[in-house]
Amino acid sequence: MSFSPLVDRLLEALRVLPGVGPKTAQRMALHLLERDRDGGRRLAGVLAQALEEVGYCRRCRTLTEEDMCALCTSPRRDDGVLCVVESPADMLAIEDAGGYRGHYFVLHGHLSPLDGIGPEDIGLDQLDVRLDEGGVEEVILATNPTVEGEATAHYIAEQLRERGMRLSRLAYGVPMGGELEYVDGGTLSRAFNGRLPFRGE
Amino acid sequence: MSFSPLVDRLLEALRVLPGVGPKTAQRMALHLLERDRDGGRRLAGVLAQALEEVGYCRRCRTLTEEDMCALCTSPRRDDGVLCVVESPADMLAIEDAGGYRGHYFVLHGHLSPLDGIGPEDIGLDQLDVRLDEGGVEEVILATNPTVEGEATAHYIAEQLRERGMRLSRLAYGVPMGGELEYVDGGTLSRAFNGRLPFRGE
Repeated sequence: MSFSPLVDRLLEALRVLPGVGPKTAQRMALHLLERDRDGGRRLAGVLAQALEEVGYCRRCRTLTEEDMCALCTSPRRDDGVLCVVESPADMLAIEDAGGYRGHYFVLHGHLSPLDGIGPEDIGLDQLDVRLDEGGVEEVILATNPTVEGEATAHYIAEQLRERGMRLSRLAYGVPMGGELEYVDGGTLSRAFNGRLPFRGE
Repeated sequence: MSFSPLVDRLLEALRVLPGVGPKTAQRMALHLLERDRDGGRRLAGVLAQALEEVGYCRRCRTLTEEDMCALCTSPRRDDGVLCVVESPADMLAIEDAGGYRGHYFVLHGHLSPLDGIGPEDIGLDQLDVRLDEGGVEEVILATNPTVEGEATAHYIAEQLRERGMRLSRLAYGVPMGGELEYVDGGTLSRAFNGRLPFRGE
């Protein structure tokens, strides 16, 4: 059985959310329609606005509706260290772990030649521009400890080698084959403190 | 750490959804912003439209954007039986279980004097109008098998007694203290078939 066409469309639209199947979509739709229309309207409005206005920071490519994000314009961060991550979620996990005071650069993915994702798709041309600004003495390659993440780290290290800056990778401590986003803060902190010089074997 | 103000507002707005905490909200927001902006725009649009246009069916009070819902206008339903439920989700569960071919009336809640929810808040005046149409020979009181649901069923039975129509309640088979919405189809079917005459002790 289905409700009306419009409610059915809402059920289907809710399923774009990760982890939301038919039953959860129904529970969400009925909750909003029956018990929280104001909250639902706010969600619809903010979602539309965010999708319209949120883009990438000009400098570090994290998500922001400004030209430059708050972290890039902060005077309290260490300009000498740049941490390269695959996603804004990774950046958030590292910030939540605490201890790191440098800047970030967000790739929004990793190299994947088979999927047609090359250096420019992950913003490596922008990374060059970023490093041309000068001031960065160390680049921490904090891509995920997966095959693709490692390969991407190696590729970036190769590109940056001639610049002569220090390159490092997160210390062992992060579980291999996992996703950085889900590592607990303590492990992540230890991995940051114990980071090793990058050796591209 | 937080993202930009607008992304933070999106994270907060997503938490109106049932079962969505901070971590899930973040995963949803990043998924939409990073990987599925089209799906997100569609969701925002349909959600806004549904909250604006979806109201109650004039006849049975289920959710619909039409004046009367598809079920009320269907010529293939049994006009002699009316099933009173607490929510559209209950109606959906009964339809999914199959076997019932009559009509519905949706209360959108149950009587709760302490919360100031009286007969008119659950549409009992509309139920009177509905029954004045004539044709209904049996009313199935399918409110939840909870204290409030039972009390509401008793109250409605009392109101309808003078009309002289058959009153029934779902057969035992539905677990006491549970929510109708989550009962499996087989149990629900059996409860429908084994329904008993209503006795207001």
